[in-house]
Amino acid sequence: MNSGAVRRVLGELLVLEAILLLLPLLVALYAQQGDAPAFLVTICLTAAAGVALILASPPRTLQIGVREGLTIVTLGWILLSLLGALPFVLSGSTTTYVDAFFETVSGFTTTGATLIGNPEGLPSGILFWRSFTHWVGGMGILVFTLALVPALGVGGFQLFKAESPGPVADKIAPRLRDTARILYLTYIGMTLLQIILLTLGGMSLFDSILHTFGTVGTGGFSTRSSSIGAYTSTYIHWVITIFMLLSGVNFSLYFALYRGRWRDVLRNEELRLYLGVVVVSALLIGMNILSDYRHQGLALRDSFFQVSSIITTTGYATADFDLWPAFSKLILLFLMLMGASAGSTAGGIKQVRFVVLFKLIKREIAKTFHPRGYIPIKLNGKSLSSDTVSGITSFLALYALIFVVGVLLISLEGIDLESAISSVACTLSNIGPGFGVVGPTRTFSEFGAASKLVFAALMLLGRLELFTVVAWITPQAWRHRS
Amino acid sequence: MNSGAVRRVLGELLVLEAILLLLPLLVALYAQQGDAPAFLVTICLTAAAGVALILASPPRTLQIGVREGLTIVTLGWILLSLLGALPFVLSGSTTTYVDAFFETVSGFTTTGATLIGNPEGLPSGILFWRSFTHWVGGMGILVFTLALVPALGVGGFQLFKAESPGPVADKIAPRLRDTARILYLTYIGMTLLQIILLTLGGMSLFDSILHTFGTVGTGGFSTRSSSIGAYTSTYIHWVITIFMLLSGVNFSLYFALYRGRWRDVLRNEELRLYLGVVVVSALLIGMNILSDYRHQGLALRDSFFQVSSIITTTGYATADFDLWPAFSKLILLFLMLMGASAGSTAGGIKQVRFVVLFKLIKREIAKTFHPRGYIPIKLNGKSLSSDTVSGITSFLALYALIFVVGVLLISLEGIDLESAISSVACTLSNIGPGFGVVGPTRTFSEFGAASKLVFAALMLLGRLELFTVVAWITPQAWRHRS
Repeated sequence: MNSGAVRRVLGELLVLEAILLLLPLLVALYAQQGDAPAFLVTICLTAAAGVALILASPPRTLQIGVREGLTIVTLGWILLSLLGALPFVLSGSTTTYVDAFFETVSGFTTTGATLIGNPEGLPSGILFWRSFTHWVGGMGILVFTLALVPALGVGGFQLFKAESPGPVADKIAPRLRDTARILYLTYIGMTLLQIILLTLGGMSLFDSILHTFGTVGTGGFSTRSSSIGAYTSTYIHWVITIFMLLSGVNFSLYFALYRGRWRDVLRNEELRLYLGVVVVSALLIGMNILSDYRHQGLALRDSFFQVSSIITTTGYATADFDLWPAFSKLILLFLMLMGASAGSTAGGIKQVRFVVLFKLIKREIAKTFHPRGYIPIKLNGKSLSSDTVSGITSFLALYALIFVVGVLLISLEGIDLESAISSVACTLSNIGPGFGVVGPTRTFSEFGAASKLVFAALMLLGRLELFTVVAWITPQAWRHRS
Repeated sequence: MNSGAVRRVLGELLVLEAILLLLPLLVALYAQQGDAPAFLVTICLTAAAGVALILASPPRTLQIGVREGLTIVTLGWILLSLLGALPFVLSGSTTTYVDAFFETVSGFTTTGATLIGNPEGLPSGILFWRSFTHWVGGMGILVFTLALVPALGVGGFQLFKAESPGPVADKIAPRLRDTARILYLTYIGMTLLQIILLTLGGMSLFDSILHTFGTVGTGGFSTRSSSIGAYTSTYIHWVITIFMLLSGVNFSLYFALYRGRWRDVLRNEELRLYLGVVVVSALLIGMNILSDYRHQGLALRDSFFQVSSIITTTGYATADFDLWPAFSKLILLFLMLMGASAGSTAGGIKQVRFVVLFKLIKREIAKTFHPRGYIPIKLNGKSLSSDTVSGITSFLALYALIFVVGVLLISLEGIDLESAISSVACTLSNIGPGFGVVGPTRTFSEFGAASKLVFAALMLLGRLELFTVVAWITPQAWRHRS
């Protein structure tokens, strides 16, 4: 392990965080609600820690391999959350540091699971920082999946790798800096557009900015305790629905569009499955909940909103879907596990992995009749290597294993099965609210500190595509290089 | 498709069923409870149908390929159930033919899900036939997985194939008839031993025979409405626990023992995982439920019994585990999906597939650090082909897909999530009772006829390792041979 390089990059990340914290500080100074000192203290501490780490590292010898990459990504996400949690606890917005840490991990991992039942009572600076962590986390994950992973080649991410066929990295400009720049621009462009559209719908500028952070980062923190349900405007519901869906699309497809490669986009198998699942699920739920609504339009508005919110792992709510019939809730539960596209800000298993799974099933049936034939698995017309396919199946196996362990640990709280299963699905897939104890009208505050840390671990595991964290904690990561 | 050969084999199966029905007829004639006519009519109809099918087929030209094999197995199981259901409805034991069909499919697939809340009220002949279908079905599945599948080479069953490395078919005498004979003898030997041990414990001979049928077939129909909980003898509980566990072991391991290959058995990775999961699960549940029990011994007796009953997919109950804490119930839910060993009478995903999954995860982590290295997946010291590995992952994907579709269909009954999820897990994995509406003190009688047919389909899909049925209903199965 080149720990000098790790220290330097982590130090740079902390300095960046200190700079980012200037924004909520400005908001706090403007709003004058007493939270400015909390940000000042945090900025000083974070900057000092960052500078100390940089000074403790040897001058620029950035030899970053897989081990260093895993450490930087995992430890970086944890360190940013540890320090980013300070404003919450210093301003008295959360009672304990564990609560503040939970809220910040939930922010940076763009989960949106919250302990704060009444966000209306928080000072503006804190509210801004809380939602801003979504936006920063979303940007972080785009850079991670579309720029860093291809460069590092971490196991289990063959689909994100530039070398492999597939919709992700190879369509973007090959060099890391260029890739990152294109991503920034798309992400910032989407952010600005949504803020404008929301303010046009009558939402205040502050709320528009914060809800946009929660949407494009597929996070889900809201300024209102009743989430988007606080707004009666159908226009606002649909704007957020559409931007949630757009945020769940593989960002490299926007680049393809920009280059005029419409055909590649229209034929993209992940995009087709993703949109197909959204439409079918929303229609099925719309029919299922129809009897509770005055007319079809409202039922479909709510079903499309909720399906988009869950599949993109955003977690906003316009209705208490915990009260919906079992059929609708089960569709949502399965969408929680599915997630949206790879190379987006969404969490979950990702649609592209399901594309491959369906093809594996189809191939196995064909093999029944042609046991000697060789049938390659293709994605968007290109054959996938057996490494890529086994990476996908291993990911699913690990997802299931972590899910089972998580559910068993959380069930020790003595809650019902539905709450245990959905709370783990919602954190591991970076969604936020689930059913029962963690339903959309409730928070995670009923859990003990140990369970909150389990949830934080699940959010981080899910966000970093499992293998980054799991590989990092194996002895192999810490062995000397051969 | 060589439909002549299919007709002949199906006809022979029906004649065999007519012969098997003579046993419950004898019981009915002896007990004099009015159910004898139902059996007489069924025997005549079944024999006539069988003979008609045989006469309608050309003289011995048994060219059986994959297509014919799939048809015989799937259609055979359905036909046997359709005719085997007659005694239930003719004797008035069930009110509708759909109910009788459900009960018979549940019997032949060794599921044990029942619609009969009060078996004490059934005539003895019917009770005997109900449990006897478990024993016949268990024998059928052993022949299917250990003799027929290797001969047919159906997709998705590479682990059962004689050509593939692994613990299953290659350790048994190579020829089909010999294999079948060894299986019969082991199965019959276990049956006789358990009957003797149960009668020694004070259970009546009739109840001993019927509970043994339910145990060695891993079925779970009981003569009592409170299942094995009706017996207070700790001896009886442990005898059934041990025989359930023995019935969940790969039967080819008994052959290895008989040949003196102790080392192969002790080193068998599936056996180790299976027993490890049983012991760990039972201890965890034992600790979790301890506070409700007078002393540790009773808690462990019930936890070992229930864990063994669920993992072997038998479904007997000695306690109302639906009232256990969420932690214990979730362990049981995951065991429902796992199932016991391949090549046993148990259903579910099977332990050997999890052995391979764990190795896939381990390999993927290793690949993170050695992306260019080739690391084969080994089972019991032998490398698995990539076909075998992809067969396993495809099986899991199809299992998950069928599970999701099943849960959504059943949830339309308006039941709670827990009942919907566990009722599908319990039928697809051929267990029987689950949680909530289908808890151990309740039956499947609250569902509508459509749901009962869905459950019947799930039981059949699970029992025939999914791909047999799914491949059979694809157009490929019906195309003319190229």
